[in-house]
Amino acid sequence: MKSSEMQTAANDALAKRYGQKAIPTIGGWNETIALLMAHRSIRAYRPDPLPIGTLETLAAVAQSAATSSNMQMWSMIAVTDQDTKAKIAAASQKQKHIEQCPLFLVFVADCSRNRRLGDAADTELASLDYFESFLVASIDAALAAQNAVVAAESLGLSTVYIGALRNQPLFIAELLGLPKGTLGVFGLCVGYADEHAVNEVKPRLPQEAVLFHGRYGVMQEKDLIADYDQEMGAFSKRHEMSDDTWSGRVLNRLSNPANLNGRDQLASILNAMGFKLK
Amino acid sequence: MKSSEMQTAANDALAKRYGQKAIPTIGGWNETIALLMAHRSIRAYRPDPLPIGTLETLAAVAQSAATSSNMQMWSMIAVTDQDTKAKIAAASQKQKHIEQCPLFLVFVADCSRNRRLGDAADTELASLDYFESFLVASIDAALAAQNAVVAAESLGLSTVYIGALRNQPLFIAELLGLPKGTLGVFGLCVGYADEHAVNEVKPRLPQEAVLFHGRYGVMQEKDLIADYDQEMGAFSKRHEMSDDTWSGRVLNRLSNPANLNGRDQLASILNAMGFKLK
Repeated sequence: MKSSEMQTAANDALAKRYGQKAIPTIGGWNETIALLMAHRSIRAYRPDPLPIGTLETLAAVAQSAATSSNMQMWSMIAVTDQDTKAKIAAASQKQKHIEQCPLFLVFVADCSRNRRLGDAADTELASLDYFESFLVASIDAALAAQNAVVAAESLGLSTVYIGALRNQPLFIAELLGLPKGTLGVFGLCVGYADEHAVNEVKPRLPQEAVLFHGRYGVMQEKDLIADYDQEMGAFSKRHEMSDDTWSGRVLNRLSNPANLNGRDQLASILNAMGFKLK
Repeated sequence: MKSSEMQTAANDALAKRYGQKAIPTIGGWNETIALLMAHRSIRAYRPDPLPIGTLETLAAVAQSAATSSNMQMWSMIAVTDQDTKAKIAAASQKQKHIEQCPLFLVFVADCSRNRRLGDAADTELASLDYFESFLVASIDAALAAQNAVVAAESLGLSTVYIGALRNQPLFIAELLGLPKGTLGVFGLCVGYADEHAVNEVKPRLPQEAVLFHGRYGVMQEKDLIADYDQEMGAFSKRHEMSDDTWSGRVLNRLSNPANLNGRDQLASILNAMGFKLK
């Protein structure tokens, strides 16, 4: 940490992310790190279109992310058509920001491109039938997408991931012409934030609850989560949501598979979509 | 794109990533985007230790990434002990960079923390038994890790993901004390690149093969892949590897499940590790 200005900026960003009581002692700091620390998911967008070429910039950085053995098992579909976005929103718990944002990106876990290579060469690519290949494709897509998020935010744009894209994967596949061996694994809204929707940075668990040295440990966990429940309770109150603790929200969300909104069928749907998941 | 200097920098970076013949027309450009575009995975490290606090910086940006419904279903384990790194390398196809790098991060898809919350509250978290929850945890881990990669590179450090961490998940779990409901989903070497190991930026598929507008399409695919095969063939020759095309490498890698190095067992191993994958 070089200057006292940087130290102040870092402490301010860490206080927002962890709360005053849980600021970790960090090392390096720079503008890129400041950008990453300041991430917020935004769920309301102005209708303003993106500058020409923004999509291609996001795709270029997405492709620059690491990909397992350079197999590049992911694709992205840019959706800008209002009717298509409305249909995706309707299938994704009516999240209005999908319709609002000028650019909706569908990230695709894609085993089909390499399968087509095999078919053209009359070579059976048996490894694509394994669970491992689906996982590689999903992780490839996530690494690519996160680069796109970082670049979007560096350009003054906002984003939010849409996991609800997995609520009705067959509908999404039909809508976007996805072939067998692909899954629209998540969506990403991209656009200019409606300023009324820009919240504080959301606090996360204390670093000691997530980062371990040498071995996983749970000794301090209850106390750390109790601290975080206080922090998130206060955050929730400030935003006039409710005074639910984080623990309460997690228990509520995960105790009832109905909250999966159809994603409890994902494994069998993936089989129907051509992923054998051996 | 503002100045002609920026235009030149952008074109240079795009030429490295796509080859001269496949440069896409992009929009925005800045230092962060330049950093993302210049990513290279590095497989040889100097022994120099990292500055104090670097790990905590990487953890802070990793925690700042989006996480599905704020459930934070991932953890990270920092491995610096030489003997532990040697054991991980031995279980990961003897990749020497795992032993060389001063910091090896294990990213953990972690359903166990929330399971413990449920147990403490005497509440069954049935949703954790679904395939969806494993996928959420793996994607959470990937988004977090990619932020750490971006921050590391912004600090002059290099990285490489280690998918081979999944070759022997039970061994890794035992070594690092991972509880049921967790998977060391991939590793990440972090350190100062051995300058002799710094290659060119690796070319990727032409943007038109990966980025689609409105609907998935394969019309141009064969030609685009043929172009890329030429580009990657030349890249391989320049680096004295071989003159394999990309297609040839993909076919070779995916046609024989023995190349999965044990990862063909992943689904059943995950069951044994407490993931029901319903």
